[in-house]
Amino acid sequence: MATTSRDTIEVGYDEFCGALAAKDLQPLWSQAANLLPKEPIPATLPWLWRWSSLLPLAVRAGELITIDRGGERRVLALANPGLKGLPFTSSTLWGAIQYLGPHETAPAHRHTPSAIRFVIDGQGVWTTVNGDATDMTPGDLVLTPSWNWHDHANPTDAAMVWFDGLDLPFMAAVEAVFFENYPELMQAFDGGHNRSELLYGGVATKPLGASAGTRHSPLLLYRYAETSRTLARMQEADPAPMVSLEYINPTTGGPAMPTLGCEMHRLRPNLRTPSARKVGSSVYVAFKGSGATVINGRAFEWERGDVFVTPSWATVDHQAYEPSDLFAVTDRPILEALHIYREEVLAQAQIITGSFQPK
Amino acid sequence: MATTSRDTIEVGYDEFCGALAAKDLQPLWSQAANLLPKEPIPATLPWLWRWSSLLPLAVRAGELITIDRGGERRVLALANPGLKGLPFTSSTLWGAIQYLGPHETAPAHRHTPSAIRFVIDGQGVWTTVNGDATDMTPGDLVLTPSWNWHDHANPTDAAMVWFDGLDLPFMAAVEAVFFENYPELMQAFDGGHNRSELLYGGVATKPLGASAGTRHSPLLLYRYAETSRTLARMQEADPAPMVSLEYINPTTGGPAMPTLGCEMHRLRPNLRTPSARKVGSSVYVAFKGSGATVINGRAFEWERGDVFVTPSWATVDHQAYEPSDLFAVTDRPILEALHIYREEVLAQAQIITGSFQPK
Amino acid sequence: MATTSRDTIEVGYDEFCGALAAKDLQPLWSQAANLLPKEPIPATLPWLWRWSSLLPLAVRAGELITIDRGGERRVLALANPGLKGLPFTSSTLWGAIQYLGPHETAPAHRHTPSAIRFVIDGQGVWTTVNGDATDMTPGDLVLTPSWNWHDHANPTDAAMVWFDGLDLPFMAAVEAVFFENYPELMQAFDGGHNRSELLYGGVATKPLGASAGTRHSPLLLYRYAETSRTLARMQEADPAPMVSLEYINPTTGGPAMPTLGCEMHRLRPNLRTPSARKVGSSVYVAFKGSGATVINGRAFEWERGDVFVTPSWATVDHQAYEPSDLFAVTDRPILEALHIYREEVLAQAQIITGSFQPK
Amino acid sequence: MATTSRDTIEVGYDEFCGALAAKDLQPLWSQAANLLPKEPIPATLPWLWRWSSLLPLAVRAGELITIDRGGERRVLALANPGLKGLPFTSSTLWGAIQYLGPHETAPAHRHTPSAIRFVIDGQGVWTTVNGDATDMTPGDLVLTPSWNWHDHANPTDAAMVWFDGLDLPFMAAVEAVFFENYPELMQAFDGGHNRSELLYGGVATKPLGASAGTRHSPLLLYRYAETSRTLARMQEADPAPMVSLEYINPTTGGPAMPTLGCEMHRLRPNLRTPSARKVGSSVYVAFKGSGATVINGRAFEWERGDVFVTPSWATVDHQAYEPSDLFAVTDRPILEALHIYREEVLAQAQIITGSFQPK
Repeated sequence: MATTSRDTIEVGYDEFCGALAAKDLQPLWSQAANLLPKEPIPATLPWLWRWSSLLPLAVRAGELITIDRGGERRVLALANPGLKGLPFTSSTLWGAIQYLGPHETAPAHRHTPSAIRFVIDGQGVWTTVNGDATDMTPGDLVLTPSWNWHDHANPTDAAMVWFDGLDLPFMAAVEAVFFENYPELMQAFDGGHNRSELLYGGVATKPLGASAGTRHSPLLLYRYAETSRTLARMQEADPAPMVSLEYINPTTGGPAMPTLGCEMHRLRPNLRTPSARKVGSSVYVAFKGSGATVINGRAFEWERGDVFVTPSWATVDHQAYEPSDLFAVTDRPILEALHIYREEVLAQAQIITGSFQPK
Repeated sequence: MATTSRDTIEVGYDEFCGALAAKDLQPLWSQAANLLPKEPIPATLPWLWRWSSLLPLAVRAGELITIDRGGERRVLALANPGLKGLPFTSSTLWGAIQYLGPHETAPAHRHTPSAIRFVIDGQGVWTTVNGDATDMTPGDLVLTPSWNWHDHANPTDAAMVWFDGLDLPFMAAVEAVFFENYPELMQAFDGGHNRSELLYGGVATKPLGASAGTRHSPLLLYRYAETSRTLARMQEADPAPMVSLEYINPTTGGPAMPTLGCEMHRLRPNLRTPSARKVGSSVYVAFKGSGATVINGRAFEWERGDVFVTPSWATVDHQAYEPSDLFAVTDRPILEALHIYREEVLAQAQIITGSFQPK
Repeated sequence: MATTSRDTIEVGYDEFCGALAAKDLQPLWSQAANLLPKEPIPATLPWLWRWSSLLPLAVRAGELITIDRGGERRVLALANPGLKGLPFTSSTLWGAIQYLGPHETAPAHRHTPSAIRFVIDGQGVWTTVNGDATDMTPGDLVLTPSWNWHDHANPTDAAMVWFDGLDLPFMAAVEAVFFENYPELMQAFDGGHNRSELLYGGVATKPLGASAGTRHSPLLLYRYAETSRTLARMQEADPAPMVSLEYINPTTGGPAMPTLGCEMHRLRPNLRTPSARKVGSSVYVAFKGSGATVINGRAFEWERGDVFVTPSWATVDHQAYEPSDLFAVTDRPILEALHIYREEVLAQAQIITGSFQPK
Repeated sequence: MATTSRDTIEVGYDEFCGALAAKDLQPLWSQAANLLPKEPIPATLPWLWRWSSLLPLAVRAGELITIDRGGERRVLALANPGLKGLPFTSSTLWGAIQYLGPHETAPAHRHTPSAIRFVIDGQGVWTTVNGDATDMTPGDLVLTPSWNWHDHANPTDAAMVWFDGLDLPFMAAVEAVFFENYPELMQAFDGGHNRSELLYGGVATKPLGASAGTRHSPLLLYRYAETSRTLARMQEADPAPMVSLEYINPTTGGPAMPTLGCEMHRLRPNLRTPSARKVGSSVYVAFKGSGATVINGRAFEWERGDVFVTPSWATVDHQAYEPSDLFAVTDRPILEALHIYREEVLAQAQIITGSFQPK
């Protein structure tokens, strides 16, 4: 949609525009091309954060910052430079690194934004979600769904670092953020761990008579051991450069949470995936291996622990240098629920015109 | 969530913050209270636009602006002063006045934002949606769903004005806006009008064998005559100060479109509705009567043609001075689809502390 | 699947079959062709009952039978001769004529079988469904959904006759029939009538905030005046020999009740519909006009008040002699919910080989 | 609902009943108590078949019967004595023992009835379902969904026996049975096995972008090793006498197939489950251990391989003599889809009044 035609510029037009502004009105015709572009023009920039930078800063934060009510999490937000200083990784997604020192706890609260925890390093920590102590080991995905009480406990002698993914920018955009502190510092639990897994951790089963169609997955822990086994099987069935799975809510077959898609992608080495684009952004965590992702013609090289973001409708392909696993959190369930998701595979691989140099 | 505790301020902290910024990182602990407030803190301001201001400016626009490819619509956007100069009425909703002069046409295009047209004045105009010429008379609701071709035609000797409601701010926030011009200036149609109504305009019926669960309502025209009859009946069954209906998709029982809720509220005179609040914003068009709406303690008086907006989680109640109909467009279907809608009725009526003086 | 091959007949086979029977076992191979036929072989016979026979017998029943607890309904079941003496109209559907004399009442009870009432003659009667007094006039469809209390009251000086359609044979087949008497003879109600219509009788609207996806339609009364208006509009849009609508649950867009499909078909005179077949049976009530329906090659002539049944997978077409309306109740929602519905239109009209002579 | 009141017996009543019969009509009032009983009165009898009887007869059938087009399966149907000589195990379910000799194949066909195969003994056999060769080992559940091509192949030197569960009686009752032979004797496949498991056999995952809401489970093989691991975990979380899982369709969270429920129950020894009843029947296969099930007061003792049936609304409880697994196939998904399922747990254990002596 092009800009205003010359015909509109006549005597009195300027005064008229002033009169509009005085009444809190704006003419569509002068900005239609920006408001209704042919394709999405995301504010989000393709970007990458190096684990080699993140980890030392997280450790340093562990030395400088205490965790307590009012400063409840030691979290470094990955702030996309395209988003005007906001601590958001994309227009809809929050990605961050969280650090929990030895024998620390992060107090119990809840919020309407949904969160996932994807463990990069360390073990022995658990997240208690609505009273269910959920263990965390590398590669595991732990859910803390919307408005569920959660706290983190590290009873070990070592620190732990994980990736946090939230729908906070989206929730802020729709002005639906609520927050509440738990009455106690930490939730009590009965000593048992991973109850959600005991009941819902089977292959295509659920407890007989369990509720159908729950709002979010009743399974809160998706272990990497299972994910890895499933990806290996998918590779047996599918020779493609990349196989991809979605973590689902076993009571619906849909996404694990209504606003956050969780995916794991396994790449065969030295094969480039088709170039493709989709509506919505993704934040990737390189969990295993190394490789490069080309985003809108620029190559982003990654290795274990690196995090990068692909904007809406960006052209993306991946190539691994060794067998690699990429975890991703996306806004896709939002788009699919509202029937505005679209994707397309390009007929030809995009041309690589440069490479990204992270700070 | 309170602000940072003093404990974090120690030697090296400032340098550390600089190191974070250098790596495109931000600390959560210093801004958690803003990011995760106890309740939504909307940027949207409660606001009202007077019909007595809107209409003359629309007429003046009719004199000054021609409609053509590239400047395809003569639309005055209701720009909320809280939204930093954006032409948006709330954080998620676009409200506007559209003016189509005698014998004018607005060219055919489509876009992923969904739109509704709510007719305030005039008749004889139709909107052609995917080839179905849909007539518009006052009080009628016409849908132009996401990615459906649409154009407007005024074959009469009089101008026409209607209210446009779009999910454009939401669609921009999730970076999902696509736009395309139709190959011809206008869509052809076979001479018949209102085909969607002929097939889907019955009371609780659908053509036998029709698709179940279509993405948007196959009914594109909701006539005021029907709406008014239904509201009168609801008043027979319900003595409350206000009865409210939602326009639905007859193949799902859900909202007419996945991202926009359409409602009509009929008010009995001189009775105040309970004070209530809900997540998400609403843009109201006063279609009949006059009255006042109290938003966060401030009274907004309205009469026919006035448009006003209620922000997310604002406390709202209405009182009519005469029998009145308020049309509203909302973002509620988005929130409900994602399970983040909430509402509450207050135990007591809010106290009125002032009144809004529109420009 | 053909019958047993000769190879199975050998020494010892007869003794073996006896040994099976002694252990309550049966060989599949000797009866596979009957159990797994190429296409459904319904027990239901195509059949027709004349209104000119039904009405005098209903009147006579009115003279002979009193209505009271224990003999709660004066109902003549249309017993299909193919169904071994059972009082069922098809393998899944119960059709019957119910007669309620002047100033009679039929006591309140409930049962898990769902029922529809389709009024043929008379007015002034109402059916109270869960406390909602629902008026009945000719051509109206009234629902008494599964396990809803219902009674019938005739405060007038004239008798009334209507058609009853139930899923009773189906419910008996799945052994799910429960029945309970109401503690009082009749339900109390507050004097208001047709509350379900006041709230849910609009065109593609529902009360704002109403439950989504209710088990059965909250609308209990579908008036003929509306049905007829809708069919007239459908004929405007569609020149076919027959237009057909389904009565739906406005909170789901699906069938009015989960086990019974309700349809109205309007026929233009002197045009034959395509020959078609579908899984599942239908019981038709000729509400207006006259014509003939060809079922598996045999013509069934009907006029106002006649009732006829089409078996599963029978080839069916209709031809009216004058503008005509055929109401039908079907088991289609059961089949569709379980994904076992299928239908096909034949390339050529079936050949008429005879005509049915009703008793 | 009691029987006819005396008031109906008057002069002319007998002639009237004759007149009704002559017109294919039946009075409801004389049989309402049978048609609308207070609770279901199932035709199905509680019954049990001993493995020690079944196996020798299956072996004998293997000697006497060849498998070929027209006599395509060597199947012994468990014929419930309550069902008038029909080869059905309950009013809705078909249970049978199928025997496939060494180096035998059972030809490819498809039918609208859905089937499950639950392996009791043997291994090395596979069932090819729509081209996917699905391996069978003891305790595995294999699906052959409605209208899916399937054949069985035994390339080994040993015979194999499994339990067949079908919805055939239900499908016959709704007159929806279709059958078709595959053009070739057996389906070709590419040499790979268990493709459905490779793609859908993960814990709460699916291939990214896979269809949502498929008609039946895309997973065709539920391995006992997984089932057993899941049951063991459920016992960790739940100290009850019995834990029960349902096999689900991972794309919906609902039942594996729309008309057949598949369940596995694990019993702790020497603990009696609460007495309960539910609408719908179940056919149980004792896969591991031994115990007794009390049905309507009568004890049915079972051990490995025995099969027994519980009728609709029968009172049922179980007690194992050793750690035991009971597989069950049920009609529950039909009842739940149509909103006519109900169940209740009795306040007290039912009294045991006798025991069943199988033939």
